[in-house]
Amino acid sequence: MTRKLRMGLIGGGAGSFIGRVHRIAAELDGEAELVCGAFSSSAQTSREAGQAYHVDPARAYPSYEEMIEREAALDPDRRMDFAVIVTPNHLHFDPARRCLERGFHVVVDKPLCFSLDEGRQLRDVVERTKRLLAVTYTYSGYPMVKQARALVASGRLGAVRKVYVEYPQGWLATDIERSGQKQAQWRTDPAKSGPGGAIGDIGTHAAHLAEYVSGLRITHVDAELQAFVAGRRLDDDSAMLLRFERGASGVLFATQVAAGEENNLRVRVYGDKGGLEWQQADANSLIVRSLDAPLQVWRTGSGYVDAVAAANTRVPPGHPEGYLEAFANIYRAFFRGVRDYANDANIDPHDYDFPTIDDGVHGMAFVDAVVRSAKSPSRWTALP
Amino acid sequence: MTRKLRMGLIGGGAGSFIGRVHRIAAELDGEAELVCGAFSSSAQTSREAGQAYHVDPARAYPSYEEMIEREAALDPDRRMDFAVIVTPNHLHFDPARRCLERGFHVVVDKPLCFSLDEGRQLRDVVERTKRLLAVTYTYSGYPMVKQARALVASGRLGAVRKVYVEYPQGWLATDIERSGQKQAQWRTDPAKSGPGGAIGDIGTHAAHLAEYVSGLRITHVDAELQAFVAGRRLDDDSAMLLRFERGASGVLFATQVAAGEENNLRVRVYGDKGGLEWQQADANSLIVRSLDAPLQVWRTGSGYVDAVAAANTRVPPGHPEGYLEAFANIYRAFFRGVRDYANDANIDPHDYDFPTIDDGVHGMAFVDAVVRSAKSPSRWTALP
Amino acid sequence: MTRKLRMGLIGGGAGSFIGRVHRIAAELDGEAELVCGAFSSSAQTSREAGQAYHVDPARAYPSYEEMIEREAALDPDRRMDFAVIVTPNHLHFDPARRCLERGFHVVVDKPLCFSLDEGRQLRDVVERTKRLLAVTYTYSGYPMVKQARALVASGRLGAVRKVYVEYPQGWLATDIERSGQKQAQWRTDPAKSGPGGAIGDIGTHAAHLAEYVSGLRITHVDAELQAFVAGRRLDDDSAMLLRFERGASGVLFATQVAAGEENNLRVRVYGDKGGLEWQQADANSLIVRSLDAPLQVWRTGSGYVDAVAAANTRVPPGHPEGYLEAFANIYRAFFRGVRDYANDANIDPHDYDFPTIDDGVHGMAFVDAVVRSAKSPSRWTALP
Amino acid sequence: MTRKLRMGLIGGGAGSFIGRVHRIAAELDGEAELVCGAFSSSAQTSREAGQAYHVDPARAYPSYEEMIEREAALDPDRRMDFAVIVTPNHLHFDPARRCLERGFHVVVDKPLCFSLDEGRQLRDVVERTKRLLAVTYTYSGYPMVKQARALVASGRLGAVRKVYVEYPQGWLATDIERSGQKQAQWRTDPAKSGPGGAIGDIGTHAAHLAEYVSGLRITHVDAELQAFVAGRRLDDDSAMLLRFERGASGVLFATQVAAGEENNLRVRVYGDKGGLEWQQADANSLIVRSLDAPLQVWRTGSGYVDAVAAANTRVPPGHPEGYLEAFANIYRAFFRGVRDYANDANIDPHDYDFPTIDDGVHGMAFVDAVVRSAKSPSRWTALP
Repeated sequence: MTRKLRMGLIGGGAGSFIGRVHRIAAELDGEAELVCGAFSSSAQTSREAGQAYHVDPARAYPSYEEMIEREAALDPDRRMDFAVIVTPNHLHFDPARRCLERGFHVVVDKPLCFSLDEGRQLRDVVERTKRLLAVTYTYSGYPMVKQARALVASGRLGAVRKVYVEYPQGWLATDIERSGQKQAQWRTDPAKSGPGGAIGDIGTHAAHLAEYVSGLRITHVDAELQAFVAGRRLDDDSAMLLRFERGASGVLFATQVAAGEENNLRVRVYGDKGGLEWQQADANSLIVRSLDAPLQVWRTGSGYVDAVAAANTRVPPGHPEGYLEAFANIYRAFFRGVRDYANDANIDPHDYDFPTIDDGVHGMAFVDAVVRSAKSPSRWTALP
Repeated sequence: MTRKLRMGLIGGGAGSFIGRVHRIAAELDGEAELVCGAFSSSAQTSREAGQAYHVDPARAYPSYEEMIEREAALDPDRRMDFAVIVTPNHLHFDPARRCLERGFHVVVDKPLCFSLDEGRQLRDVVERTKRLLAVTYTYSGYPMVKQARALVASGRLGAVRKVYVEYPQGWLATDIERSGQKQAQWRTDPAKSGPGGAIGDIGTHAAHLAEYVSGLRITHVDAELQAFVAGRRLDDDSAMLLRFERGASGVLFATQVAAGEENNLRVRVYGDKGGLEWQQADANSLIVRSLDAPLQVWRTGSGYVDAVAAANTRVPPGHPEGYLEAFANIYRAFFRGVRDYANDANIDPHDYDFPTIDDGVHGMAFVDAVVRSAKSPSRWTALP
Repeated sequence: MTRKLRMGLIGGGAGSFIGRVHRIAAELDGEAELVCGAFSSSAQTSREAGQAYHVDPARAYPSYEEMIEREAALDPDRRMDFAVIVTPNHLHFDPARRCLERGFHVVVDKPLCFSLDEGRQLRDVVERTKRLLAVTYTYSGYPMVKQARALVASGRLGAVRKVYVEYPQGWLATDIERSGQKQAQWRTDPAKSGPGGAIGDIGTHAAHLAEYVSGLRITHVDAELQAFVAGRRLDDDSAMLLRFERGASGVLFATQVAAGEENNLRVRVYGDKGGLEWQQADANSLIVRSLDAPLQVWRTGSGYVDAVAAANTRVPPGHPEGYLEAFANIYRAFFRGVRDYANDANIDPHDYDFPTIDDGVHGMAFVDAVVRSAKSPSRWTALP
Repeated sequence: MTRKLRMGLIGGGAGSFIGRVHRIAAELDGEAELVCGAFSSSAQTSREAGQAYHVDPARAYPSYEEMIEREAALDPDRRMDFAVIVTPNHLHFDPARRCLERGFHVVVDKPLCFSLDEGRQLRDVVERTKRLLAVTYTYSGYPMVKQARALVASGRLGAVRKVYVEYPQGWLATDIERSGQKQAQWRTDPAKSGPGGAIGDIGTHAAHLAEYVSGLRITHVDAELQAFVAGRRLDDDSAMLLRFERGASGVLFATQVAAGEENNLRVRVYGDKGGLEWQQADANSLIVRSLDAPLQVWRTGSGYVDAVAAANTRVPPGHPEGYLEAFANIYRAFFRGVRDYANDANIDPHDYDFPTIDDGVHGMAFVDAVVRSAKSPSRWTALP
């Protein structure tokens, strides 16, 4: 299959940040194009968004239900190949289920869905329909994050002892959800976000990054959740001690009230022979420390990086790559899966370097455990 | 005109770095799509490149001459709107001229062409045909570079005194042109590159950046050119003192033999009230200094940036944007021009924030002056 | 009293890092000079150290007991004014007590002593003897740390919500205590260090810094202590969630097994209006964030800093000051107290900007609470 | 000779920044103590300064002439061993000459003196009297600068091609010399500073650093000097192209009108195998680049540094050392010379790692050449 893949978008209308990001990321390599969408629950808004996206007006649908049915009815050489779901969390499960059941592959923005229970149901659907589902834990798409994972896996750091991951943001330091900011409104609404606020929105990113780089699953959390802004109904701040597999331990904090912070995700891993550090603000650098040697800075695109890092880079060293390119790398891996799937529906999605339904369900389990831990008087809560 | 614009690519076949970059940058906002190309002077290579780009095989042409003629003969609602020229410097002029004369707008990778003389001829063609021509001085596309220019223009730094610009690379520290590296081969070949080596390849970027940010034209240079690698026929190293309009002075160096450096473009401007500093390695930060106040770091996407910076950003603060997005900003401005042109062929290209034919000719004049200065025993050489 | 103050040193013989540091720091401003010492429990070693320090051989004593007695017997215009105690933790209490009881002021290296119980006894001695006692929580001596404290106190950040403090070191990543490294030997020996390993050695620094900058006391800890190196008898790693006064919360980790890390102390404080960040590796910079304004970097020695920062700086901006100067600032404040004391024995030590006996006892209480918390199955342990 | 060395200070009274710095630096290691001074040309001011320095009132002299005579007349076990000259440039030569002729060793703050001619005369005096003279090119005292020099000398970078050195300051961006700022007054006064303004004050530091690290002498300059502030009689800004021995070339700029800059000295050296970079603002780091390997950061105090770097460090890695410690390293080397000299007056001062009279005279020759070059219409001016 050498043609471009055809993408449908569910959500992503006016005011959506993440919808446009998915469009750019999916199309970046010239391997896919947006052909249809249910961009909004308002037919008018969806139509206008379709026009802005230069989509055939007939394929700017008034609802995702209609989109899925009508695309499924199209000729195979016209209909979409996969759908991307960028609606608020409470509207992930149903469109994802319908897409899968109609034979479409699915990309879901993180977190996977509204609750752990929904997540488990969705896993059942994926297993039953055998379609591919990717969850966009974006930060695992950065070449230097992949390099970090490769270095840990190679044993260069020795046995992992400590994993520190942090994700401070400041945009919810005030009650902007009351001033009509749409992104803030649904994220602070338990009916739309689910049981976690900051912990679901960015804590899951942090947890996934920690696990992706260290190669170790989090097994227990000792967590505190707080809502600092008066009247806020979900946590805007989280902090926790972590236990990982194989005796490693760590710390995670994810907060949206760190006034003045942008999006300062950072991970550090230390083993008995060395350590590494990556932060999104300097995304093309990976700091590597050893017991008694000069600190090293590994850089995106350099000749010495591992194959997995090289394969996720588009420009020569010194030409900064950023968030959109990292995002595009998730799609690149997913597309490889989709193209292989066309030849063999029995491929194993874990062979492709994108976050799968299992990562998505694990993320929901993490949120679930954190929320339970935060209410528990005792220290450690195991992940289900 | 709400449809996507149609792009043709001249050059950009196998092994081209910059061809793929132009494709990504032009399509990034979903406002254009690659529809045809003369990707190589080999018909076979061009055909293969067309397939890789998912272009209609009938429009993967064996030569740019044929491409231009056949596209011009197509129905207006199918034919390309503009051509992008990414061939080596000695192959800029002719395809650009032909495109313009056939009514196509043109984007040329920098430097504009092979010689100052060619550049002046091309300016005549642009003036005669009244088509739009953009030169991709990429670095002027970064939001924080635009913010820097806005701060200087606002008077915040006071009258500009000093401009320091530097561009160290290390990739030509050894004679890789003899080992078959294509990028190095033509860049070190005077028959393909023109009279300047490093000074043409990256010195022109540095000079344009210095002028773009400071708002001042370079008037005189006192330059030295060297070729450090044995047998190299063009300079791989340049350094010079600069005089600007309105009494400002400065320093520029651009070298490709700074072993271990990537692509470390940096500019600093100081006026009588303050200074600023930007470097590509930390592209989303702009350092602003004042006489007696804390140093400030302005950041891409922040609420406080000027409109011109905000308009050239796609993601919220803290989501790094890089080289491809900067490149896409050149296209974004160019497309605005192209769409306006469809309504009014008398628009002034200087009203759009992309480097024009005048910037391109000025860049050729800069190279010309530097080469003359480097051979002169006296100090200052005026730009023509 | 315009003469130099006379210092005696207890500990600080061959192989001592911190003894030499105290000597440099105390003498840095030319306000004190080392005149005597009991540099070692070996008379021979003490004599040799005295020679290296250029101290009168008659005043290089074989034991601290003898030193205190003999100095007390000297003529007032010769005898020492204060003693500095730089022995391992289990040898802080007794010499401090004797000095105070003989009328000497005392400087003790942190932590104050071996146990909370000893600390409380020592507080009684200080209160009874009315002498001055300083504890060298060095990092509070940095000008930009003082600036940070001043900014928080001024209300610029608003009400403090979060305090993050971290102190990764890597020097105990392997079992160097078995290879004869003296610093490691006593620090990993519960009979010399007390109940805390890393938590006592560097965790107390971190806790003090967090409290000093935020102006808030830690009230509760939820802590984990680990010993990663096989056979180690004290923790080499700690991590905890914190509760502070007035509803603030935070995270602290202090580890000595972060392979490849040097001494990377860092603190961040966020209030409802802004945040700040300081790290020792860039000690002369203080990052200040606001809700919607460019990030600021405040710099040591600048004209705009607060008086307390200016008063603790010796050189113009851009001339880096480091650890020794920070250390000297503790002494500078202590000396001001000692000189005032000569006029009025009723001065309040809290009026001087050095860590007092109360800070020392609080540090012991912190260690005590952390050790208890780490053994407790429930979450929060209150500080006594 | 195991006693402390006795220092006299010429200059350094009220308002002197550099006098206090020399006092701290010389005494830092406990190897010397200030015993006398002619701190000012006003007897009253000198007396007050002596008191502030805790110097014996009888040895706070009203003039350097009297100081030199009276100290020379003292008993050998009381009189000063060396004098430190921190007066403005026009008052270096005479006191230095007198000291040397009376048998005292001398430390002179840079630049060596008022003119190249004076410098040459002083060299004659040094040669005749066979005393030691050090010039405090402070920045060569940093451990990581010494490490840089060692790496270049070891051949790790290959043959040196390019040397870039820059020294932007901003404190003379306005005409503060008219507002009574003493440091600015004499530095902008040709009768006190000599023929060079910024070029003498900080350009000589930059030139020395470039030569010290690269191990190569500057042979030719192509320089421009400017005075940006209206009415200023000496240059406040300089920029030049450089030629070094063995075919290397470079760029130097030193300016005092870079508004908002502190003291941002930076040097970069590139050879055919790699490069290195050091800047004072991050003085404890040395960046080392190679052709195709991760960038390295070498850090002060680490186990892997060369002996010369280790020998010039006082604290463990991660405890920042700064300007005062670098300054103290110049004294440390000088004192080693002074102590050896007591045993053997025929030692070769070049065997000690401090800047000698030859470095001082070379610095004057550099200023001389730059001033001549700036007035010359032709490009290259050779150093005498």
